[in-house]
Amino acid sequence: MTSPVLHDHAKNIIERCREMARITDVPGETTRLFLSPATRDVHTLLLRWMREARLEGRVDDAGNVRAVRPATDRSAPRVLLFSHIDTVPNAGAFDGPLGVVLAIEAIAILADEQLPFAIEVIAFGEEEGIRFGFPFFGSMAVTGQVVPETVERRDSQGNSVAEALYEFGLRPQNIARSCALAPETFAALEVHIEQGPVLEAENLSLGIVEAIVGQSRFELTFTGQANHAGTTPMSLRHDALAAAAHWVTEVERYAANYQQLVATVGQLEVSPGAVNVVPGEARATLDVRHPKDESRHAAVANLLTKAELAAAQRGVRVSAKAMSKQAAVPMNRELTMALQQAAARAGHETHAMFSGAGHDAMILAPQVPTTMLFVRSPGGLSHHPEETVRVVDVEAALGTVLQFIHGLQPPGR
Amino acid sequence: MTSPVLHDHAKNIIERCREMARITDVPGETTRLFLSPATRDVHTLLLRWMREARLEGRVDDAGNVRAVRPATDRSAPRVLLFSHIDTVPNAGAFDGPLGVVLAIEAIAILADEQLPFAIEVIAFGEEEGIRFGFPFFGSMAVTGQVVPETVERRDSQGNSVAEALYEFGLRPQNIARSCALAPETFAALEVHIEQGPVLEAENLSLGIVEAIVGQSRFELTFTGQANHAGTTPMSLRHDALAAAAHWVTEVERYAANYQQLVATVGQLEVSPGAVNVVPGEARATLDVRHPKDESRHAAVANLLTKAELAAAQRGVRVSAKAMSKQAAVPMNRELTMALQQAAARAGHETHAMFSGAGHDAMILAPQVPTTMLFVRSPGGLSHHPEETVRVVDVEAALGTVLQFIHGLQPPGR
Repeated sequence: MTSPVLHDHAKNIIERCREMARITDVPGETTRLFLSPATRDVHTLLLRWMREARLEGRVDDAGNVRAVRPATDRSAPRVLLFSHIDTVPNAGAFDGPLGVVLAIEAIAILADEQLPFAIEVIAFGEEEGIRFGFPFFGSMAVTGQVVPETVERRDSQGNSVAEALYEFGLRPQNIARSCALAPETFAALEVHIEQGPVLEAENLSLGIVEAIVGQSRFELTFTGQANHAGTTPMSLRHDALAAAAHWVTEVERYAANYQQLVATVGQLEVSPGAVNVVPGEARATLDVRHPKDESRHAAVANLLTKAELAAAQRGVRVSAKAMSKQAAVPMNRELTMALQQAAARAGHETHAMFSGAGHDAMILAPQVPTTMLFVRSPGGLSHHPEETVRVVDVEAALGTVLQFIHGLQPPGR
Repeated sequence: MTSPVLHDHAKNIIERCREMARITDVPGETTRLFLSPATRDVHTLLLRWMREARLEGRVDDAGNVRAVRPATDRSAPRVLLFSHIDTVPNAGAFDGPLGVVLAIEAIAILADEQLPFAIEVIAFGEEEGIRFGFPFFGSMAVTGQVVPETVERRDSQGNSVAEALYEFGLRPQNIARSCALAPETFAALEVHIEQGPVLEAENLSLGIVEAIVGQSRFELTFTGQANHAGTTPMSLRHDALAAAAHWVTEVERYAANYQQLVATVGQLEVSPGAVNVVPGEARATLDVRHPKDESRHAAVANLLTKAELAAAQRGVRVSAKAMSKQAAVPMNRELTMALQQAAARAGHETHAMFSGAGHDAMILAPQVPTTMLFVRSPGGLSHHPEETVRVVDVEAALGTVLQFIHGLQPPGR
């Protein structure tokens, strides 16, 4: 495969992502929630592109669009290429669609080439979790993780997942049967935009994801004493905001010392919140992520202790409430190495990194060997109409995926 | 005057303040805004107490209740004792009323005693500024500072000050004539609760106010870049909250180094304000107070520079907007010394201090020699239903006021 040809394919991938982005439930922006009217049009478009790549597509009962490129041998093992097609409100064109469109393009390029495995493409119908308030429905469906409570969840209009599936012409009661991944699936690869600034800072097209970070979220409440800002000397204050602010700077400083750690205070609310009143209470959130769970736990313990110290210095109390946590998910070591080597063969230096955001790869990884390829996000921008990709980077990703497919060894062969 | 007698008078003063506090526009709390129905009942009560002290009271056209204890000599100079009778919503019983009730009690104690000056008592009708959104209407009226725009201001119901005065039976057009302080007024004294914790910390009943602090208020906006909390490494962030938080700790640290300086960040708002988004903007207020204007200006300049440094370190921009400023108002030096000596003669150690809050004394001071006596606030509490005073402290204040009156030398005598 020569580069000028790949270049044209890369341009085609980008054009198709932009074409898909024009299919929207909200005119003037790209907003495509799970099972929406626009989603049906995207299904039609995807099935057409699949046909053009000689794939017979179908929509499974969880709303995922999928197709299999068979191997010569009907009992051959299977490789999965996947990403998602739903969006956040007012989204860009590439978060999700890039991986799906690139997979179809890769299969079109393979044409009649004979491979010792089948290739399945899945466009997950729900990853962002906007409509029903929880993410990864599509990948949970193919991994057998959809339970009755899942389909009973309701959107803001009061419609349940089950009702929305029925209305779309699907049969939620068949999810377990019609959605499950073929047991012969031995490798899975997601291509996705980075959604961060790391590759841009590294001046590289591609990142090899070694793990998806674990996450801990806390809510902290600093309780001091509201006092008159004029009549209360500094030495007699119990300023809840000063304690919280001190702690915010500690969070920043601590996380900066550890390369793979991120820690964020994204919310901070002060009460009573008047210009002339010493704050009596400050409520803050803490979001800590690290690719190693033990490092994350150590960071959390350290940061909560720092909150207590910052509070105690000012005669302020602090309480911390765990809101959620999620373990880190490592990608499959062998596949990840194979992906890195495929990129090298395709002539691309890569950056070994972790994903700070959740992806369907995280849901699949515990059940099937999974790896993930990041494509540089110009400006680190995503979940934004100006989210974009560079042709050269998409070309690199496509070349890498083709090399990855060519280099894959089915198990036991 | 023996102490057991003063003790009973102090108890009476406290009882009367509590009686006045039961007169309220909002049952179950003490809320008495300017010219409200409850205010009329308070006028009736005050005029009765004045009569019992052999004072002929009147309500001036600005809604102030006032009475003069004449001197033998009709052309004698005049001393003014004053405070206010309006309250904040859900107030305590002593912020304002204490100074008024104590003045009437002092005059009752003086009985037939002959003095070389008259004594006027004024209960200002509006000091807190709640109803019409600006404070000190009463003291501005007696010092000739009420202009047409002042009486055109409207409350939340759309009634102007002028309309409210008319409806109360007063004639706003007569304010200049009926309210002006007698030109022979040579000394003015306000007794007021401290509304802060300083006297409690000093274990003293009384504070001698040397100045009312000047004030500067700013609004600062830190503008960084909102980013994904998972995918944005610490080193590539422009976290507006981290910058603001760093600055808040600097404000606290700086002010703690200067005994008379207070600096407060009372409001802090973060946007977008999501647990998983690095804050792109933080808006904060700054309130700086100091009894010396030049020290306040230096502090402000320093703190704004610190904001720029905290921002620049993180690639964040910051802008500061001045919201208001008010010069410090020194109390009259001779009168303040006389007040301190009066307290000493009455047997009370005092604490020389400044007022961090505004008071009517601040409005009067530029026009008539004025001083101010603070009474300890248990717990530093004010603008709160549990605001209180101790009998022993009120007794000390009453004894000091009586000594002050006895020791006063009218000018040119």
